[in-house]
Amino acid sequence: MAEVESREWYLAAYAAEGVPTSDHLKLRTVTLSLSPDSIPEQHVILETLFISIEPYLRSSITGREDGLCIPQFNLDQVITAFGVGRVIRSKDGNYAEGDIVVSAFTSVAEYCAVPSQLIARKIHTNSGIPLPEYISLLGVPGFAAWVGIELLADPKPGSNVFISAAAGAVGMYAGQLAKLRGCRVIGSTGSDEKVRLIKEEFGYDDAFNYHTETDFDAALSKYFPNGIDVYLDNVGGEMLEAALNHVNKHAKIPLCGMISGYNKVWTEREGVRNLLNLIGKEVNMQGFLVGSYLHRYGDFATEMESHVKQGKIGYSKLKIFHGIETLLESLGSLFTSSNVGKVVIQAK
Amino acid sequence: MAEVESREWYLAAYAAEGVPTSDHLKLRTVTLSLSPDSIPEQHVILETLFISIEPYLRSSITGREDGLCIPQFNLDQVITAFGVGRVIRSKDGNYAEGDIVVSAFTSVAEYCAVPSQLIARKIHTNSGIPLPEYISLLGVPGFAAWVGIELLADPKPGSNVFISAAAGAVGMYAGQLAKLRGCRVIGSTGSDEKVRLIKEEFGYDDAFNYHTETDFDAALSKYFPNGIDVYLDNVGGEMLEAALNHVNKHAKIPLCGMISGYNKVWTEREGVRNLLNLIGKEVNMQGFLVGSYLHRYGDFATEMESHVKQGKIGYSKLKIFHGIETLLESLGSLFTSSNVGKVVIQAK
Repeated sequence: MAEVESREWYLAAYAAEGVPTSDHLKLRTVTLSLSPDSIPEQHVILETLFISIEPYLRSSITGREDGLCIPQFNLDQVITAFGVGRVIRSKDGNYAEGDIVVSAFTSVAEYCAVPSQLIARKIHTNSGIPLPEYISLLGVPGFAAWVGIELLADPKPGSNVFISAAAGAVGMYAGQLAKLRGCRVIGSTGSDEKVRLIKEEFGYDDAFNYHTETDFDAALSKYFPNGIDVYLDNVGGEMLEAALNHVNKHAKIPLCGMISGYNKVWTEREGVRNLLNLIGKEVNMQGFLVGSYLHRYGDFATEMESHVKQGKIGYSKLKIFHGIETLLESLGSLFTSSNVGKVVIQAK
Repeated sequence: MAEVESREWYLAAYAAEGVPTSDHLKLRTVTLSLSPDSIPEQHVILETLFISIEPYLRSSITGREDGLCIPQFNLDQVITAFGVGRVIRSKDGNYAEGDIVVSAFTSVAEYCAVPSQLIARKIHTNSGIPLPEYISLLGVPGFAAWVGIELLADPKPGSNVFISAAAGAVGMYAGQLAKLRGCRVIGSTGSDEKVRLIKEEFGYDDAFNYHTETDFDAALSKYFPNGIDVYLDNVGGEMLEAALNHVNKHAKIPLCGMISGYNKVWTEREGVRNLLNLIGKEVNMQGFLVGSYLHRYGDFATEMESHVKQGKIGYSKLKIFHGIETLLESLGSLFTSSNVGKVVIQAK
């Protein structure tokens, strides 16, 4: 095989607001040469197996530096994401054909060339851990949950922990980690089905549906009679404002995401009017990106793999989209109430 | 002298919004017995010399627990504040007639009885430090500036530091402390006269008048071409929102006060729409009250007294109101652009 045809997604136009459509992201077919001469040194050719679809991808195609400070794709550039792939050609002695690897810059494509220095890890296929977990439980969402709960919130047993978007990729791990710390954990989410899931599968003590309990202040009064000690915020806006009316003294608020605002320019976002509560309650609010904690990735992976082996944390709830052509559908699903768990594209 | 007449301020009605008036705070004359039998054990009678007028006083007469979580005065209760007084009667062996003391619960009155356990410190009158400095430089505003800059922001030499309400009681010390750390320090304030003062007397590198440079975003672009590393926020609202558009990676924002909101119920306050920037820039925002740092007061006082003796920090710009009857005027001045430095009532 001297070459392969590969369908790949590229940026056709920036999407300033709203959910991206086929006006913004387009699929094209390219031919990738597999002849050794055409592959640069220290590169591998990957056959894509799984691609991680994350909210930050939305922020990387707005055409402006946004609050998340995510670098923007250029027009015509191939979209990349965290992915799991199989090495089919290698110009790096550390990787052999057949190796399965995790890479931070896998193209949203059937095949791609990747500089081997961007490979995050080689997967030992006898580990027993399903491949998509390497971009979920052991990937960005699992690591974000761990940084937010273990490193930043560091809650005591008995602490009252609130997690928004609790059925999302970060929320499903964060709740379990907080439970392992002996906390009382309550989640918010967008459907009754997800409320059930959060309680039965992710081990939360309780959860509420913000579409039916629309008075967030009343809901938080009900679920947090003793106030909130930790709020892992994944949504921002109105729910953050409501939470600030229920924080306890010295509460901690790791800011992991604010999905309520990603499809809006910042001046259109809901303002938070009660930041004065941060003073009276001496609250610490800490925004974070997992990229700043990579020096702790090893500790995280060891801990999570141990939790999984001991059955303390279950494998992930995955929302798998089949085929590279599902990018728009899978990305759009992050911004609907129907999304559950970790969104992944299975390329083959 | 068996008794004294004393004029004292009491709360006649809560002031939910706006600047308090004579409808809310009223003056009455009471008679205080000085006979030993009528003074409780472990109490002293103070003749009030200086009273500290601070923004938190506004929040203690709203009739509701506000974002600052300041306990509310009861109706008919005498208003109390930090003050400097002379002991004229004592039922505590640690205090003698003639001692000058600082107390956290001095009545806004000509005379008052104070439990001696509420006395913060006895002043050694040969220290050379003017008496009002004990409720200013060495009082709540000086301590708040020190906690915000030294403990929470902990800036490196060369850091770009922004301080709002820079001509106010906290701002005048905070700027000097940041300069001693080798930072580049810019302040915002409400008049050209105060801009001059901030630069010439408080040692700021530069300052701007937010009444004339009303496009805060443009102003911050101009004064912070390299972004903001530390923002000591004393005002909240629109200026905080603007600052969040200029923060650098890992910026620190100690929240000391939000005076733009004190005269409004929280739902009427300006919302901050760009909190997403806290994530992209991984900013730490920490609300604080000095009461939680009292275990560091000794370190603070030693350091500040040393700075003063070495001429590194000058004595305070004081705005002295004469006579106990000036409470409404002095409190109201905190919420106008005319206020400069530390507001103090000199009772005698």
